[in-house]
Amino acid sequence: MERTKFLLDENEMPKAWYNIQADLPKPLPPVIHPGTGKPIGPQDLAVLFPMELIKQEVSQERYIEIPEPVQDVYKLYRPSPLIRARRLEKALDTPAQIYFKYEGVSPVGSHKLNTAIAQVYYNQLAGTTRIATETGAGQWGTALSFACNLFGIECKVYMVKISYEQKPYRRILMETYGARVVASPSTDTHAGAAALDNDPECTGSLGLAISEAVEDAATHQPGTKYSLGSVLNHVLMHQTVIGLEAQKQFEKAGVEPDIVIGCVGGGSNFGGFALPFVREKIVNRKATRIIAVEPTATPSMTRGAYAFDYGDTAHLAPIVKMYTLGSSFMPPSIHAGGLRYHGMAPIISALYDQKFIEAVAVQQNAVFAAGVQFARAEGIVPAPESSHAIRVAIDEALQCKARGEKKVIAFNLSGHGHFDLGGYDAYLRGKLPDYEYPQAAIAQAIAQLPKVELA
Amino acid sequence: MERTKFLLDENEMPKAWYNIQADLPKPLPPVIHPGTGKPIGPQDLAVLFPMELIKQEVSQERYIEIPEPVQDVYKLYRPSPLIRARRLEKALDTPAQIYFKYEGVSPVGSHKLNTAIAQVYYNQLAGTTRIATETGAGQWGTALSFACNLFGIECKVYMVKISYEQKPYRRILMETYGARVVASPSTDTHAGAAALDNDPECTGSLGLAISEAVEDAATHQPGTKYSLGSVLNHVLMHQTVIGLEAQKQFEKAGVEPDIVIGCVGGGSNFGGFALPFVREKIVNRKATRIIAVEPTATPSMTRGAYAFDYGDTAHLAPIVKMYTLGSSFMPPSIHAGGLRYHGMAPIISALYDQKFIEAVAVQQNAVFAAGVQFARAEGIVPAPESSHAIRVAIDEALQCKARGEKKVIAFNLSGHGHFDLGGYDAYLRGKLPDYEYPQAAIAQAIAQLPKVELA
Repeated sequence: MERTKFLLDENEMPKAWYNIQADLPKPLPPVIHPGTGKPIGPQDLAVLFPMELIKQEVSQERYIEIPEPVQDVYKLYRPSPLIRARRLEKALDTPAQIYFKYEGVSPVGSHKLNTAIAQVYYNQLAGTTRIATETGAGQWGTALSFACNLFGIECKVYMVKISYEQKPYRRILMETYGARVVASPSTDTHAGAAALDNDPECTGSLGLAISEAVEDAATHQPGTKYSLGSVLNHVLMHQTVIGLEAQKQFEKAGVEPDIVIGCVGGGSNFGGFALPFVREKIVNRKATRIIAVEPTATPSMTRGAYAFDYGDTAHLAPIVKMYTLGSSFMPPSIHAGGLRYHGMAPIISALYDQKFIEAVAVQQNAVFAAGVQFARAEGIVPAPESSHAIRVAIDEALQCKARGEKKVIAFNLSGHGHFDLGGYDAYLRGKLPDYEYPQAAIAQAIAQLPKVELA
Repeated sequence: MERTKFLLDENEMPKAWYNIQADLPKPLPPVIHPGTGKPIGPQDLAVLFPMELIKQEVSQERYIEIPEPVQDVYKLYRPSPLIRARRLEKALDTPAQIYFKYEGVSPVGSHKLNTAIAQVYYNQLAGTTRIATETGAGQWGTALSFACNLFGIECKVYMVKISYEQKPYRRILMETYGARVVASPSTDTHAGAAALDNDPECTGSLGLAISEAVEDAATHQPGTKYSLGSVLNHVLMHQTVIGLEAQKQFEKAGVEPDIVIGCVGGGSNFGGFALPFVREKIVNRKATRIIAVEPTATPSMTRGAYAFDYGDTAHLAPIVKMYTLGSSFMPPSIHAGGLRYHGMAPIISALYDQKFIEAVAVQQNAVFAAGVQFARAEGIVPAPESSHAIRVAIDEALQCKARGEKKVIAFNLSGHGHFDLGGYDAYLRGKLPDYEYPQAAIAQAIAQLPKVELA
């Protein structure tokens, strides 16, 4: 019988993360202080992050050692399996091989735990006793809640109100791990209270929840820090454990992927999976196609501008150069809540700008159709976010069929969809809306981008 | 660093199931026809089951080969990991070692898939085109829905109405796999219609849903068969893949369990995990303690009678000798819906009667306390059913601490609790009721047991 899973032993787990900043053809643009408009220094960030993470954010070292206590927690669920989707291949009748890396084996259900553990560990070392964060769909909040609990740190989560109300199970999960969860906008912060004054019915947004969590950290000194689940360089770096494992697993499988696919919201699961393969393109001139998949509803790369922009709504977070729809852009309520962000990680943005990676946008119904087809073939019900990657993997496999090509297609299945079945229900009943590119809203938000002049 | 997970390669997966009937000191009592009151023959069961499963039900062969197509589907998620709960040990400050076998890695979230695949495979071989079944909490219905979809067989699930209404996600999951799900009692069967005539607000029970599914199969001939997710000999045998893997994994870990623990409703996850260890007691006189854990709300072994009883409410299913609370016993609405059954597998009942295994009953709040403690230590949020086993594992570990004993404790974590978070919410808010032994209701139901006279 053909092999289905390619596993690694605990001892084969990567001992270091990969930092692509060491291999970028040109360095990343500077990060700008939202108050002064000038490049930011480590001390400006020290109120939000422990120094070790700030160092990682700007490090040019190619590999950064994974501390033993972090590796030790990784072993609860890592190495994650690389699985050949043989039943999906058969259902598609494609000559292509389809592989997926499955991050849903993490106890919290997604890749987010890979960086949560690392961030909480460095915070503990620095004496942090409390961490504030935001969460949209809930994947990040869940991961941070569990990680904080493991390292004995208090955790406060600002959960976008529409998710707080629609996904009570996610809230309960965070509380089961011991976190305190409030709906955002909340009255716990000025940013939240202002939003509620303006509109008492406001259902919140990720940008607003970030503002609340950043304000919480800044106003609970000393002891409280802030933690972000995507976008930042150190977050993407922590996630590279995914791609580094996958490379070893492909070696065991005796194949190399021709096409590497991941969904993108802030960019962390895509980056974690793809960056080690991007290195092969930069350093060894490999011809691998690397595709980032976003929703047509939040098409930051396919329709946004590559410009300096705020990371949050209230303009408390640093300004970075990224593909963005404008920080005032309010994303439609798609079920893939984890992809509802106006910007894109600076690293992913730079790689797209320099044409090392491709980007495509897909519609919601096509995404759920792919998710259901995958679930029926492979059993795993994917998160709607991850189904964006599956959609493009299936499309590429069907292209291979049309052309008679035996390509090797690999995608990152960043998490399971056990808490997203409302979307599946709507899809199965034909009640799921599609979203065209929101061109007018994007144009309006992009017109409000901050002006940044570099020396 | 100490090892956390003990994995097996796909090639190390057991190639045969273990049939304990070959090793029982005395043979199981006969199965009785509910109409004639006489021992049943293979032909009497042929309307419900394919002949290969009927043969397995009475087989005296010690090992029965796992067909290649079944092994091939097992490889989607098997071998499942054996994990050392080092963080739980530390939290308990116990000298004991605690290991758990984790069946929640199955894409449907529980061990139920192990037998669903096998049953659907033999049905497909026999030309079955449609299968009817019941489900309580939804674990079994989900497993059968996915298995049917893989083998191209139509699936109809009668889901106990209270779960249908309280757990929409479970219903959506079955529909995502392509099954047709109705709330039981339904108007699709005479048994269901009669129950609704009697009480239009009836919220159903597992016994009633079994009656509906059995009637459905009997009245949709030819082509439709019935499928049961627990209790029967062949079901427990399919589940022994769990314990057989665990034995190989303990060999790799270099330890042998002193105490083996599983939760019991119908008996399949407990049997699957424990029976290979029971063999060691019967054949090799090992002193292993083997503990079945049930809720105080449905205490079939600790408070029931060992007697002949019907498997269902409408008395359409065969009569078997088992520990039972009486088929008219209506279990309280505990959150561990998978344990709400009035009877116990004949194999487990015989082993308990012959003192090869122990049984204990635990209260609901103590169970959820154990589930939360486990989740905070190990990350995995367990199904409330599985938390019954965790409760006793923790209690035994604390006993070891009190006595300074370094025992090896092993339990089966039969599934995750991602669809059971309502119970966690009630627990965390202090709103979960406990249930004393329902002595009066048990006495009343046991007084109505059928009279069976064997020749």
